Amino acid sequence: MSSTWPKGFRAYAANIGVKDTTLDFSVVLGEPGTRCVALFTKSRFAGCSVRISREHAASARGVVTVSKNSNVATGAQGEANARALLTMVAKKLDVAPNELIVGSTGVIGRQYPMDRITAGVDRLDPAAMDASLAQVAKAIMTTDTVHKTARRSVGGASIAGVAKGVGMIEPDMATLLTWVFTDAAVPPGELDRIFRRVVDRTFNSLSIDTDTSTSDSAAIFSSGAAGPVDLGAFERALHEVCLDLATQIARDGEGATKLLEVRVDGARNDALARRVAKSIVNSPLVKTAVHGADPNWGRIAMAVGKVDDQSIDADRTIIRFGAMEVYPTSLDEADLDQLAGIMRRDHVVVHVSLGDGPGAWTVYGCDLSREYIAINADYTT
Amino acid sequence: MSSTWPKGFRAYAANIGVKDTTLDFSVVLGEPGTRCVALFTKSRFAGCSVRISREHAASARGVVTVSKNSNVATGAQGEANARALLTMVAKKLDVAPNELIVGSTGVIGRQYPMDRITAGVDRLDPAAMDASLAQVAKAIMTTDTVHKTARRSVGGASIAGVAKGVGMIEPDMATLLTWVFTDAAVPPGELDRIFRRVVDRTFNSLSIDTDTSTSDSAAIFSSGAAGPVDLGAFERALHEVCLDLATQIARDGEGATKLLEVRVDGARNDALARRVAKSIVNSPLVKTAVHGADPNWGRIAMAVGKVDDQSIDADRTIIRFGAMEVYPTSLDEADLDQLAGIMRRDHVVVHVSLGDGPGAWTVYGCDLSREYIAINADYTT
Repeated sequence: MSSTWPKGFRAYAANIGVKDTTLDFSVVLGEPGTRCVALFTKSRFAGCSVRISREHAASARGVVTVSKNSNVATGAQGEANARALLTMVAKKLDVAPNELIVGSTGVIGRQYPMDRITAGVDRLDPAAMDASLAQVAKAIMTTDTVHKTARRSVGGASIAGVAKGVGMIEPDMATLLTWVFTDAAVPPGELDRIFRRVVDRTFNSLSIDTDTSTSDSAAIFSSGAAGPVDLGAFERALHEVCLDLATQIARDGEGATKLLEVRVDGARNDALARRVAKSIVNSPLVKTAVHGADPNWGRIAMAVGKVDDQSIDADRTIIRFGAMEVYPTSLDEADLDQLAGIMRRDHVVVHVSLGDGPGAWTVYGCDLSREYIAINADYTT
Repeated sequence: MSSTWPKGFRAYAANIGVKDTTLDFSVVLGEPGTRCVALFTKSRFAGCSVRISREHAASARGVVTVSKNSNVATGAQGEANARALLTMVAKKLDVAPNELIVGSTGVIGRQYPMDRITAGVDRLDPAAMDASLAQVAKAIMTTDTVHKTARRSVGGASIAGVAKGVGMIEPDMATLLTWVFTDAAVPPGELDRIFRRVVDRTFNSLSIDTDTSTSDSAAIFSSGAAGPVDLGAFERALHEVCLDLATQIARDGEGATKLLEVRVDGARNDALARRVAKSIVNSPLVKTAVHGADPNWGRIAMAVGKVDDQSIDADRTIIRFGAMEVYPTSLDEADLDQLAGIMRRDHVVVHVSLGDGPGAWTVYGCDLSREYIAINADYTT
């Protein structure tokens, strides 16, 4: 089981009764010398886990995750509880509290059940940290319907990651809890730059529902145990791991039945391409049309048009679904039937070319279904 | 019937077979000397009706509306069709084409059925323009379930308006077709300033689904036939008419079962209050919680927090539903039951105070239901 980990990492996963009897507590620890780069939500209501992890990231070599309770909007008591949790775990592992970051995810505005958490941490046996990547991925889930892991090799090293999240997903810095581990030895400055670039094109290009979480955290831990690798190959492999996790999140989005990929090119610059792509992937009218395979392509035109930038010109814009051009070409009824067929696939690609420059960006999302409403109209009760 | 109009206006409404047998064509004409102020969508895919109306607004004294087809993304043919329509109507009414603006609303990307439109306009009898305000309001509907009119008196004058729109509603300049008529004589510069201020706090503060239409148009016509009125009283009455229409649109939002009003105060300035209010009213997690009367108030904290402005401080923020404070106070189970009761009302008020300045703004929206998905997953087919 633990063979799924890059060299230099050990893990623990258990149920400690935060809410029910499923896995809700995990710890992953890197060997001494492991480095961490972490990115967090920009939310002004960021939870105390995020605030504490910001303090600890530079010295961290491990991560503690509690699921089913986000410990957000819980005030001074919530922060004291989070620090007490880290102190207890650090003592068990014989490390300093600031060698750990903490992630917490679940309902907002409820205090941790500290009696059960204390008893749960007490059962942690540091000599038996043999949880698999999949077990850790399961232990960080809340309403996810499947656990998310991804793994790639690069030279003699490997990269493995876990992620969770199905709603409250439009990350602005990182997405709701993703931890990535590698035994490649990457110089710290490079690790930081590479991780930021990769997160920007993967997790930060993902939107389930436009709602940015209070708990978003993404971290990569590098033990260096497998020695140096080619940095270009490392970045490509890391991109694949993060994109794999991001698209797993999109496919498991609340109520989602398909992956929606939106490619925009020909923009004045990358930033504008991204704005247009986000406008499309976040449009509820586009998302419902994709859900129903309704060939109402005019909604793409609407979503492009509402980015009211001077450099977007409807007369130079081309809109395609996959390889099929729908604007400015004229479609007849048979064409619309063909378009509906393309939209019935479980991976729908919208491709918009603005004809105005070299800027390009791709974003990932999902359709919007009745099930999204059912899940969210009755979540806490 | 025509007594519902301010003095100096006549109207016509009919079915001309654009799509089905419901009312789909209307004309309202003011007497010579009537002035018009009009505001339009900023969409880069604005339809040709919007482009032509921008040209004509300064000289306009009447408005032609076609419903069930937006004439958007229809190219040069679409523009020629719109100009031909205005030329035909102008000839019937013995006015110049540039004395008319045109609104068109419905599916995007289909050409007008010009044979039926030509035959329909030919039936217009200029001597029998006696349609009521309600008939015009009905003739501009697409998927609206109720027609929207509002009327107020001010001194010896009156203000009457019609509006339509249930989806693709987050106006950035004006909302999808609202025409307001008054016989008050208001100096042109004042009419422009007053209308912009009122639209900003009413139609531009409305969001059903974050999708900005390609056809948004708001215009006020002033015949002056009732003479001058107090301008402060006029602005208050106009605000009431426009707010009445805007909240009718919110209540009739696609799938909506209740009106969601979000008041933000204590912001550094009005613009920030508006951003925070829009973030809340547009959050699908807030909208679904309101729909299900789920007392998951943490989602309001999330929606405030995702406006990542330095001047928003979670520790100074107060969140209320109606008069009930939910943050930072601690709620017990009985409190949550009471909150669920407040959220079951058909008008839910969220009130957020940021504790940072004098800025305040109120926005209007609706809940998000399964019915929204049903309506939009299968619209054109």
